[in-house]
Amino acid sequence: MTQSDAYKPLTPETLPARLGKLPAMTTRLGEDFTAWTVKEVGDGNLNLVFIVAGAKDSVIVKQALPYVRLVGDSWPLPLYRAFYEHCALTRQAQRAPGTVPEIYHFDEAQALIVMQFLSPHIILRNKLIRGEKVTGAGEFIGKFCARTAFRGSELSMQSAAKKADVGVFSGNVDIPAITESLVFTDPYYDAEMNNHNALLDPVVESIRSNIELKRRVQKMLMKFASNTETMVHGDLHSGSIMATDNELYVIDPEFAQYGPMGFDLGMVTANFLMAYFSQPAHRGNELDEYQGWILDVIAKTLHTYRAEFTRLWQEERTGMLYPTALFESQGHDSSKACEQLLADTHTDAMAFCGIEMHRRCLSLAHNADFEDIENPVKRAPLEARNLQMGMQLILDTESVSDEHALIAMAKDYNQRSFV
Amino acid sequence: MTQSDAYKPLTPETLPARLGKLPAMTTRLGEDFTAWTVKEVGDGNLNLVFIVAGAKDSVIVKQALPYVRLVGDSWPLPLYRAFYEHCALTRQAQRAPGTVPEIYHFDEAQALIVMQFLSPHIILRNKLIRGEKVTGAGEFIGKFCARTAFRGSELSMQSAAKKADVGVFSGNVDIPAITESLVFTDPYYDAEMNNHNALLDPVVESIRSNIELKRRVQKMLMKFASNTETMVHGDLHSGSIMATDNELYVIDPEFAQYGPMGFDLGMVTANFLMAYFSQPAHRGNELDEYQGWILDVIAKTLHTYRAEFTRLWQEERTGMLYPTALFESQGHDSSKACEQLLADTHTDAMAFCGIEMHRRCLSLAHNADFEDIENPVKRAPLEARNLQMGMQLILDTESVSDEHALIAMAKDYNQRSFV
Repeated sequence: MTQSDAYKPLTPETLPARLGKLPAMTTRLGEDFTAWTVKEVGDGNLNLVFIVAGAKDSVIVKQALPYVRLVGDSWPLPLYRAFYEHCALTRQAQRAPGTVPEIYHFDEAQALIVMQFLSPHIILRNKLIRGEKVTGAGEFIGKFCARTAFRGSELSMQSAAKKADVGVFSGNVDIPAITESLVFTDPYYDAEMNNHNALLDPVVESIRSNIELKRRVQKMLMKFASNTETMVHGDLHSGSIMATDNELYVIDPEFAQYGPMGFDLGMVTANFLMAYFSQPAHRGNELDEYQGWILDVIAKTLHTYRAEFTRLWQEERTGMLYPTALFESQGHDSSKACEQLLADTHTDAMAFCGIEMHRRCLSLAHNADFEDIENPVKRAPLEARNLQMGMQLILDTESVSDEHALIAMAKDYNQRSFV
Repeated sequence: MTQSDAYKPLTPETLPARLGKLPAMTTRLGEDFTAWTVKEVGDGNLNLVFIVAGAKDSVIVKQALPYVRLVGDSWPLPLYRAFYEHCALTRQAQRAPGTVPEIYHFDEAQALIVMQFLSPHIILRNKLIRGEKVTGAGEFIGKFCARTAFRGSELSMQSAAKKADVGVFSGNVDIPAITESLVFTDPYYDAEMNNHNALLDPVVESIRSNIELKRRVQKMLMKFASNTETMVHGDLHSGSIMATDNELYVIDPEFAQYGPMGFDLGMVTANFLMAYFSQPAHRGNELDEYQGWILDVIAKTLHTYRAEFTRLWQEERTGMLYPTALFESQGHDSSKACEQLLADTHTDAMAFCGIEMHRRCLSLAHNADFEDIENPVKRAPLEARNLQMGMQLILDTESVSDEHALIAMAKDYNQRSFV
């Protein structure tokens, strides 16, 4: 098995023999690959994921499939996404050290990455459904977003390097195209692959008939598709975060592209809001307390983002944007400029947040927070709160000026009945 | 001479022998290259430009130099800009047919383009200084901007093709870097290569000490550097347009990049405003009438841009942005969405306009409209009006909502004394 071999998907049966000579594997799992155990655990929408265990240690082997796993081979998807995932993981490790799994081996031809096995970490979304808290979640996510946003932009990077990187990622076409259609367009008309809870029909109708709403969403799509401010994770939700009680990692960045600074922040906030709105179906007595904790994570995420971004602005502003030569070197304070940029990022984030809240109930890829509620009658009123608040976030973006306004709005919607 | 030969700058003496076998030349100029006449006419800042004449016809030979001609070989500049100029001319010819010179031959290794000789066209800036009118100027420029903006965006292009093109142009780093520093940053502090009329010192001081102004300019720099909405010409001023009394061509797109839709529109508007403010030094009795004509060109440019963009929106919206599936197919009118996008483009254009008005008096590359006024005492009050209006355009962008507001503002500043 060499890198030049033609691509072939692994199976639990073929994996040990095919990867049995890789130093990245043998040093961790032992030389005798016949003694390895292999479990396929991919529960995402796109890839094969194997946990390969030796006597002392385990590794993750992630391999792209040439189609969308959720849909099947009728929806082909290029293998080069593993290349972009590798690019993104490398950059995230530089820009936000310690936040992503370590890479042990990358094989471009096999669209395969061997990486750190996180244990006992589980997908954060599952913890949120179970009602488990993660200490420091908001601080971690806020810092991850701030560091990758700042250090992937021309506030920090030299322009030639940043532009070259935009060129590299401009080849990642098919994966962002999924976001462009599933997130920004399909929810707003009766697209073929859509599905939604039929009890939501009146709410869905009010969304799809709102021309101003659709205009604003398309404006955000134009920003998403055209604005290369920084390298975004591109799919940052609670299913792309793994956590223990007090340690977190960000995974699965194959949707990475250069995009708007507010994108990741908006997506992740939306996913916490959906966790929040779904809680009445998952919790008993501890509902209020756990919902309060989720809102606190959102508040801490947004607060930490600002604080960390501001620190980097003061300490690491080495790129061509807002250069110190124009401000500090002239005795001119640049803190207002930083605040205004943060305010613009927040506004974008709130609009992206509303859009993500819509697509997860209306488009193809729903999330478990709501989907695990089997009874549609029980699920509909919670989804409706989510959809209605998403609508207000899109239509009234500028008025949600900070996390306090956002949280007050969430609490208000959490009391209301729409279906 | 083959394409693989090492780059060597042409001279009028060596050109006929070196290019004498090119069919692109011989079919137009005749086989006997010893009978050709060659004149070097490059009056720009960057390149060699030759008019090569045969018995019946002439062609332009444009060759990049490996440094900035205006400054000398102390400022190296890559030859690959000829490649990007060729890319840009090709795309402009497709997107706005008939607006750019025809290309006869491109030699990447020699950084050389053989193209249509425009005669009796002269540089529009010279006509403006001489007081000559060009029928249809505003309509031509407005259409050029609208067609290249619309057809180079994901309103029209398929996303994969547009993203691949962004990747191609992401290699054009050093040329946009000139704009980034000379236009957006250098004017706002005492940068090494700057120069300005010393009589303007108080005005310059008020500009450079205005922190909010600098913040807004840097925000526009971030848009310029990050926002790949469409392929912009990148240097669209009256020196990049050639004209007779009634026919116009756009030339010199080596600054092309994917950038914000409002950029070209703002730059070209600024250059007409500078022509306007400089007129009192160039005209006699016919001053009012000619200044009125210049303002009319600005009004027609902005009006035509909107009208043509709106027509393309209705007739050619085939890209993923604002898809008809979301609007017209649902019986939903999208004209408000088009108007709002045009309003956003206009706002950007007004800010870019103010910035261009500044840099042409404060940074390295001044323009002849003002520079041809030899007496600094006569020049200063006219430059000051231009600088002050630029400041208001940047600080008060949103209030200049259309061409009528802009023209009223220009007329007002044209009456005022600042130095």
